[in-house]
Amino acid sequence: MSTLLTPGATLAAIRHQGPLVHNITNFVAMDLAANALLAAGASPLMAHAREEVAEVVALAAALTVNMGTFSPAWIEAAELAAGTARTLGKPWVLDPVGVGATAFRRDNGRRLVALAPTVVRGNASEIRALAGLADSGGKGVDAADTVESAAEAADELARRLGCVVAVTGAIDRVTDGRRIATVANGHAMMTRVTALGCSLTALTGACLAVEADPFVAAVHALALVGVAGEQAVEAAAGPGSLRVGYLDRLYGLAPEELDRAARIAEAHR
Amino acid sequence: MSTLLTPGATLAAIRHQGPLVHNITNFVAMDLAANALLAAGASPLMAHAREEVAEVVALAAALTVNMGTFSPAWIEAAELAAGTARTLGKPWVLDPVGVGATAFRRDNGRRLVALAPTVVRGNASEIRALAGLADSGGKGVDAADTVESAAEAADELARRLGCVVAVTGAIDRVTDGRRIATVANGHAMMTRVTALGCSLTALTGACLAVEADPFVAAVHALALVGVAGEQAVEAAAGPGSLRVGYLDRLYGLAPEELDRAARIAEAHR
Amino acid sequence: MSTLLTPGATLAAIRHQGPLVHNITNFVAMDLAANALLAAGASPLMAHAREEVAEVVALAAALTVNMGTFSPAWIEAAELAAGTARTLGKPWVLDPVGVGATAFRRDNGRRLVALAPTVVRGNASEIRALAGLADSGGKGVDAADTVESAAEAADELARRLGCVVAVTGAIDRVTDGRRIATVANGHAMMTRVTALGCSLTALTGACLAVEADPFVAAVHALALVGVAGEQAVEAAAGPGSLRVGYLDRLYGLAPEELDRAARIAEAHR
Repeated sequence: MSTLLTPGATLAAIRHQGPLVHNITNFVAMDLAANALLAAGASPLMAHAREEVAEVVALAAALTVNMGTFSPAWIEAAELAAGTARTLGKPWVLDPVGVGATAFRRDNGRRLVALAPTVVRGNASEIRALAGLADSGGKGVDAADTVESAAEAADELARRLGCVVAVTGAIDRVTDGRRIATVANGHAMMTRVTALGCSLTALTGACLAVEADPFVAAVHALALVGVAGEQAVEAAAGPGSLRVGYLDRLYGLAPEELDRAARIAEAHR
Repeated sequence: MSTLLTPGATLAAIRHQGPLVHNITNFVAMDLAANALLAAGASPLMAHAREEVAEVVALAAALTVNMGTFSPAWIEAAELAAGTARTLGKPWVLDPVGVGATAFRRDNGRRLVALAPTVVRGNASEIRALAGLADSGGKGVDAADTVESAAEAADELARRLGCVVAVTGAIDRVTDGRRIATVANGHAMMTRVTALGCSLTALTGACLAVEADPFVAAVHALALVGVAGEQAVEAAAGPGSLRVGYLDRLYGLAPEELDRAARIAEAHR
Repeated sequence: MSTLLTPGATLAAIRHQGPLVHNITNFVAMDLAANALLAAGASPLMAHAREEVAEVVALAAALTVNMGTFSPAWIEAAELAAGTARTLGKPWVLDPVGVGATAFRRDNGRRLVALAPTVVRGNASEIRALAGLADSGGKGVDAADTVESAAEAADELARRLGCVVAVTGAIDRVTDGRRIATVANGHAMMTRVTALGCSLTALTGACLAVEADPFVAAVHALALVGVAGEQAVEAAAGPGSLRVGYLDRLYGLAPEELDRAARIAEAHR
């Protein structure tokens, strides 16, 4: 049985090992990212001061960088942290929030991409913008492009950077430039909860901390978030209760239940 | 039938158009502001770096500025953003959180008021302080004054700035210096949820994005928040579940239900 | 009847007086700290700009400083605020989040401890690190040490600083270097909600605002958070609903119910 199809083992490993995940993330996402990591069994640490990020990376099992509300001091700290992760051989995840929206974000995206992220996680508009494709339809931080429209950009980016690219949407698509997998979990109401995608980035960090193959880790994080989210939607009256139920499910979901509910497929070009 | 009495049309327009609303807001309010906008059908973008705010304003349909936890870099960015909104003819909302509390906040309030906000939204203490009236009873960011005590200050401010002033309290009062309306929705428990007023400011931005008359837009935002909040209180065990239910109702509230439940009245001096 | 055993009186006083509590806290904790204060009946004010913190301290009844996501500008503002509190004779609480993790945090901890906090609230790893004990097992911000292992460090710190030290864990332990009390409320699931400990720090500020004996105030804050949390766990499906229920209970808990449920004991060395 393929490891790819058993995200429950990764979830069990997170709960068993409780890996420390260092997050440099945006102001909106901090709360949900930290709570999602705690609920899933990991240990979050938020730190962005240039004075300490290198030390924090050294303590942590993985780093995640989300450039949502960056200012110059934050991008400098993120570069320092990502560079340290690279030097120490620790996995790190890039979430290029709204990278196509402004010159500042494009510049930040370029600077971070140059530091060899292990996984890039974004919506279709962000991945297309990051790959340098023109005419992305993204307005702001929501995705206006379809996952399929970003498939080529994702493959190209994965091969160029030697990393895993996860494009999220109705059906998520993960590639390392060679392998491709899709994850068909989740629910449209999840797009009405802010920072839920950012919490996926944080959980991708937790998966990378316990699973050596970053392609598999990225797929498992998507399955975990998708299944927890869709189960929460069933009992939710709207995005407020969805967010609450999402954290409850991250905590309560049994590994074998995750394996059963995950709709992971290996795809071919 | 008066447009003023049908906030449901504005809510339907937000859901249909999904306007991008740029928010420069305080650290406490970011999460709820973004979630309230998403729940109601709008698209939030948080950005405060001087390097990008002008570009973000250009992308957005409306801007909201909430000076709750400002430091000098934030007020500079907010001034740049508000000035850009003014130049581009885009509506912007000012939330002068705790403006009377410190010299720094008074100065920030003065600087922002000079940039011609479309709507000013505050509690009675804040509006009185902003209008330059002495002896405001506000301690911190809560309102100690009654809405009525701020009526004159609100009228004066509206005429001086040529803007709409919304004073929130048990019965909200909106004026553009000529017209006056009151909104009698909401519930006292809502004052026990942090940043609920800030989320009203964000939603006022969404209403301004789809409704050309800022007086009407401000009234409709108040009705939306008031009705969603009071419906949430009915099922709430306290402020924790009120916040959750508030987001659920912003998402689930039908336009015709909002029209029926809104207690909007035109008032006269 | 000992005052120590009746935290309900302190809760009633908070609700009656609605004290203004100034918080300089980390980005993750702001939302829950503000909501916990509001739910319990206090009035939170978040302000960190050097330009205004001294004025805010002067307005407030108590100050809390949580160094979780500090950068240099924040530690400077916190020092200014704490120094002002000391000068004005106002109580202030220090939460040395992750103080052992990096050189920057150790330095920040040293600088703040020098300003004579009224209460220091931390987990065992943090208190040991702060007391200068070597080989703390803490990774990041979670506690790896037991409360008992920090007892000596806490006593030493309390005597050296002339303050109250509250070490939180399965059974909390409070000392002023002379008196010792334990609080046996709470539930393990509470460690899976981010910033719940930070909200305790904020509520300790509220208790200090209404109770003159800081030893008693610290014990009562622990009992309040522990009882609200354990009651919330009973109805919770996981950490998401626990957080919601915690705020609901802070709001709904009757003083006499708190007195009955509190498991406070005076201890002896």
